[in-house]
Amino acid sequence: MATIQDVAKQAQVGKATVSRVLSGKGYVKESTREKVLRVIEELDYTPNEAARNLFYNKTNIVAVIVPEVSHPFFAEFLSHTETALTRCGYQAMICNTWCEQNYELRCLEMLKQRRVDGIIFAAHSLNVEQYEGIDRPIVALDRVLNEEIPCVAANHREGGRLAAEELIRSGCKNVLQFRDNGSVADTPSNLRHDVFETVMQEHHIPCYSFEMDWNTFGDDYYKQITEHILEEHPDVDGVFGTDEIIMSVLQSANQLGRKVPQDLKLIAYDGTRATRFASPSLTMIVQPMQALAEQAVSLMIQMIQGKGVERGTVVLPVTLQKGGST
Amino acid sequence: MATIQDVAKQAQVGKATVSRVLSGKGYVKESTREKVLRVIEELDYTPNEAARNLFYNKTNIVAVIVPEVSHPFFAEFLSHTETALTRCGYQAMICNTWCEQNYELRCLEMLKQRRVDGIIFAAHSLNVEQYEGIDRPIVALDRVLNEEIPCVAANHREGGRLAAEELIRSGCKNVLQFRDNGSVADTPSNLRHDVFETVMQEHHIPCYSFEMDWNTFGDDYYKQITEHILEEHPDVDGVFGTDEIIMSVLQSANQLGRKVPQDLKLIAYDGTRATRFASPSLTMIVQPMQALAEQAVSLMIQMIQGKGVERGTVVLPVTLQKGGST
Repeated sequence: MATIQDVAKQAQVGKATVSRVLSGKGYVKESTREKVLRVIEELDYTPNEAARNLFYNKTNIVAVIVPEVSHPFFAEFLSHTETALTRCGYQAMICNTWCEQNYELRCLEMLKQRRVDGIIFAAHSLNVEQYEGIDRPIVALDRVLNEEIPCVAANHREGGRLAAEELIRSGCKNVLQFRDNGSVADTPSNLRHDVFETVMQEHHIPCYSFEMDWNTFGDDYYKQITEHILEEHPDVDGVFGTDEIIMSVLQSANQLGRKVPQDLKLIAYDGTRATRFASPSLTMIVQPMQALAEQAVSLMIQMIQGKGVERGTVVLPVTLQKGGST
Repeated sequence: MATIQDVAKQAQVGKATVSRVLSGKGYVKESTREKVLRVIEELDYTPNEAARNLFYNKTNIVAVIVPEVSHPFFAEFLSHTETALTRCGYQAMICNTWCEQNYELRCLEMLKQRRVDGIIFAAHSLNVEQYEGIDRPIVALDRVLNEEIPCVAANHREGGRLAAEELIRSGCKNVLQFRDNGSVADTPSNLRHDVFETVMQEHHIPCYSFEMDWNTFGDDYYKQITEHILEEHPDVDGVFGTDEIIMSVLQSANQLGRKVPQDLKLIAYDGTRATRFASPSLTMIVQPMQALAEQAVSLMIQMIQGKGVERGTVVLPVTLQKGGST
């Protein structure tokens, strides 16, 4: 592979001249410039990206930290994030934290070592203090880390309200919602559950909240709790939860002979491809995955470019998509 | 953030001395070494990774190229690949090609520019020639690019045979398989279809192959073709295809009142989480996703380290997982 030395030698100029031609900075005689460019083409010379990055102190890489790449929500968020980053000339590096604190710490360390230009955090098992004192761009999805770090989130309040109203409209008299247990601190996504509960209270409809282990994505765990709930709570006629848990409720209902939507109304939260083969199709609150990714990337690029961004949470709208399960 | 200059100044030594302490190469008086290390700790100095990478001409980044991150098979492959790379001290950069040729070319360009140490290719829309002349490590999943580039693949022949035998055992008299159309050249994964057909022929069972557009993952497309097939081919009593298409057949069968497994036997290929909420559960040929990822990473690391690896395809076993659909 040709080096800058090879180019300089063959063009009979100094390395500094080749650099000036490449960067477009500084004076180079037009005939010399043409000669250098011709040699670059002849030798198929590619400037060493690492050297250029060192010079500009940037990597053009943004790390995207998710709990688990293969979880449908994070897979779709990652896919849209990668597309948006690529359009802006950046590459996406992924980190799958599997909820391991140490790995998340290592990702922060990468940022300190300038291996990446910024981090989009969609997984947060660390204490908030550990994000402090990092002077490079961080954008968070669904988590308020501190006042300095912008957050992007769907309108989870509206999502909770739409879900509750849809179940009420469908005639539910006794509802259950699955929510994460309290182990995760301040995430706006919990707001949907509070609003869901409040709306049910306003309509005097009993609402039972089942607390799930956070970020437990296992099949057996889902099957176990959904069967337990359908058997222990035969009076429940409406269930609200994330896509996969509602898919699991639908599966258990089929196996136990509970008819959806006649006996049991279901409404799923997220609207990922995990729900695409549900039968009947699911009524869903759809998060704007693409818009969330694009907003996160847009904030990230502005911060990398040193432009000011508004602190606080950018809230994007959710939509109710009617299916056959309510 | 402290620089190497700051360390040198405070330790009252030259920058070259700090470099020698950091690299462990060259002589440094023990008392000086201790002093430098003390200052490094005091100033919380982190060596600039970009500088170190430039020195060693490596980035510790491996690009993983997939057609679509959010497709369950690629999401799981990516997840395991990231985990395996991380264990070896590498980071995974993702590239979602969406089957866009230009993007795949850009990824190859990154390799030439030394932005990554190697590429694991799980998407191949380019012509094979375009991979030639690249002197950095490439490992391919499910595609023989050329004699020089090692390939990792599941035992698709065995997968096709196991699927065919399972449908025959279940009493099928008339089967259909979904296969990609011929637009993709030489992928070992097509072998399963050839073997499936051969086994059916040996048993004098009519076998119809439906050619799908390659890498078309859309809901509507699946729904449209599965409904069409169930209506146009009411005599078909056994279907073989990838996870999502079989999930779509199951959904259409439910809607059209065709009973699985009584009227229609189904067997899915891949065994991703896309099938987890099927009712009845699917009989599947499970690809060893984790082993494929670990094997690809192991070959990649050996190649990065300049060790020789055997050319040709590394074939890993598949398993039949019995479900309620056969």
